[in-house]
Amino acid sequence: MSFDSSSVLAVGTVAFDSIRTPFGFRDRIVGGAGTYIGWSASRLGVRTGLVSVVGDDFPESELSDMVAAGMMLDGIERKPGEKSFYWSGSYHMDMNGRDSLETQLNVLADFNPVIPGAWRNAKWLMLGNIDPTLQASVLDQLEARPELVVLDTMNFWMDIALEPLKAVIARVDVLTINDEEARQLSGERSLVKAARVILGMGPRYLIIKKGEHGALLFNQGAEGLGYFFCPALPLEDVVDPTGAGDTFAGGFIGHLAALGRTDFEAMKSAVVMGSALASFTCESFGTEGIRALDGGALEVRLAAFRSMTDWQAHRVSAGVRV
Amino acid sequence: MSFDSSSVLAVGTVAFDSIRTPFGFRDRIVGGAGTYIGWSASRLGVRTGLVSVVGDDFPESELSDMVAAGMMLDGIERKPGEKSFYWSGSYHMDMNGRDSLETQLNVLADFNPVIPGAWRNAKWLMLGNIDPTLQASVLDQLEARPELVVLDTMNFWMDIALEPLKAVIARVDVLTINDEEARQLSGERSLVKAARVILGMGPRYLIIKKGEHGALLFNQGAEGLGYFFCPALPLEDVVDPTGAGDTFAGGFIGHLAALGRTDFEAMKSAVVMGSALASFTCESFGTEGIRALDGGALEVRLAAFRSMTDWQAHRVSAGVRV
Repeated sequence: MSFDSSSVLAVGTVAFDSIRTPFGFRDRIVGGAGTYIGWSASRLGVRTGLVSVVGDDFPESELSDMVAAGMMLDGIERKPGEKSFYWSGSYHMDMNGRDSLETQLNVLADFNPVIPGAWRNAKWLMLGNIDPTLQASVLDQLEARPELVVLDTMNFWMDIALEPLKAVIARVDVLTINDEEARQLSGERSLVKAARVILGMGPRYLIIKKGEHGALLFNQGAEGLGYFFCPALPLEDVVDPTGAGDTFAGGFIGHLAALGRTDFEAMKSAVVMGSALASFTCESFGTEGIRALDGGALEVRLAAFRSMTDWQAHRVSAGVRV
Repeated sequence: MSFDSSSVLAVGTVAFDSIRTPFGFRDRIVGGAGTYIGWSASRLGVRTGLVSVVGDDFPESELSDMVAAGMMLDGIERKPGEKSFYWSGSYHMDMNGRDSLETQLNVLADFNPVIPGAWRNAKWLMLGNIDPTLQASVLDQLEARPELVVLDTMNFWMDIALEPLKAVIARVDVLTINDEEARQLSGERSLVKAARVILGMGPRYLIIKKGEHGALLFNQGAEGLGYFFCPALPLEDVVDPTGAGDTFAGGFIGHLAALGRTDFEAMKSAVVMGSALASFTCESFGTEGIRALDGGALEVRLAAFRSMTDWQAHRVSAGVRV
């Protein structure tokens, strides 16, 4: 199988994480935005061509698991004698925040993404959260504008590279950030006003990720600002939310790639699909939840989203004002 | 018109508030849980019998406006020579929190709710946020168990009157609290676990109000824990959220009273109705938004809730794993 018109091209880290949450500690498990994006899309039968860089400390067995799941790794550079990107963090007891304990850029320090020739006509491009100048260089290498470009970023790049970030945001279709980042990027407290400002920067769609509070999709249409909301599934336990946003992104673009659609209605179901997939990532450490997921469990979870969001209007009788 | 089988019996404060938000300051405007509940239900054409107490400082014009809107005030005691309950508060710049600056109990200090005889067969009872022993005394005065009893409370009563609060919670059908209160009452961080613990205390339904993040409805059914989520409408500006929870409660029980239903499906639409009504309260200071609301504006807003929550599942083609 090779890269085709329903394959996703994704750039993002393939790395190690050490994670402490109230549910335990995991030392140097596999993580990274690219990893989660690829695993997530693979659950939908969508193949992802990953562009990333690892050191020679990255386990071959992990890479062969990814290939077996349908990911294409020709875009992953391996640097002999160097170490993979490493992050360690500790989540607060209430899971509402986390502290970064250590970040070792290692191979990421001079990462220069090179898109394999066969992938340069990609129709579905996921720009994971890395330096915006690298995100732009990926776009520059493509032969044609993809059908859909989704970009994920974070407050770190708003702090240190705002202009390059704005430049690449202007070139994408969908931007995904969290609520505080939307406020920072727009200078507006109201998410409605923030969405209007950000959609004025270029993207057609904005997804504001609110973690346990769900995700908002905004679209500036001809008839004004359109929006859609998908709740997060209430979980028995959020064991480890690391990678939930990347899992969401992989499921979002993977669903659209599988459908071959980029319209607002398809985007809504893609937000639900991304949210459903992310819920599995939250239930276990690292990639455990998403890689163990099969179609049956996903169907059951999508039914839970349906039931959680469905309501019927009940007309009240005469004499009532509404 | 008199108190009938679709009228709501509500106990709650009728009072003065002084409120500072980033949008301005209002000195001694009319507020109180009972006031918001009554105004909200009145927007649905539902009449509310209010049980409360005011001093002789409370303006007659406000009371006659309430009567004109369909509220029945025979249960409001007026204490000559005394002052009405007064609260003043200041919202933080980010509207995510507020400080109580002053609370004068005044007439509320020795409030003893007396239910007018003609209201003692009420079918729809809303116990607004007051001392749980007073909420229990209202239940004790009724001739028969109402069709539906909804109870609102807050962390203050969990801190100083937990046992009386638990005793009255055991006697109601629906409990409405916010997410932090659900965690405090249950001792569980996970809202799913919190819901199970709280539903084990007696109520059939639990509504967890998350403010700008929406509302969760839980129901312990025969097939396990059922849940429904309604987002809050993203607003251009949250001018003053005071009374939003009480507006929600009045719309919730008012909708069920108008329908004459207490099943899970009706509860879902009642959560949407309560959320829609609360959005108007948030858009202006005090009761301005909810009292100016007409049926046409409410219809438009309900359509926005419909559009915000509707999504279609899109089946993906063969070869895809899900």
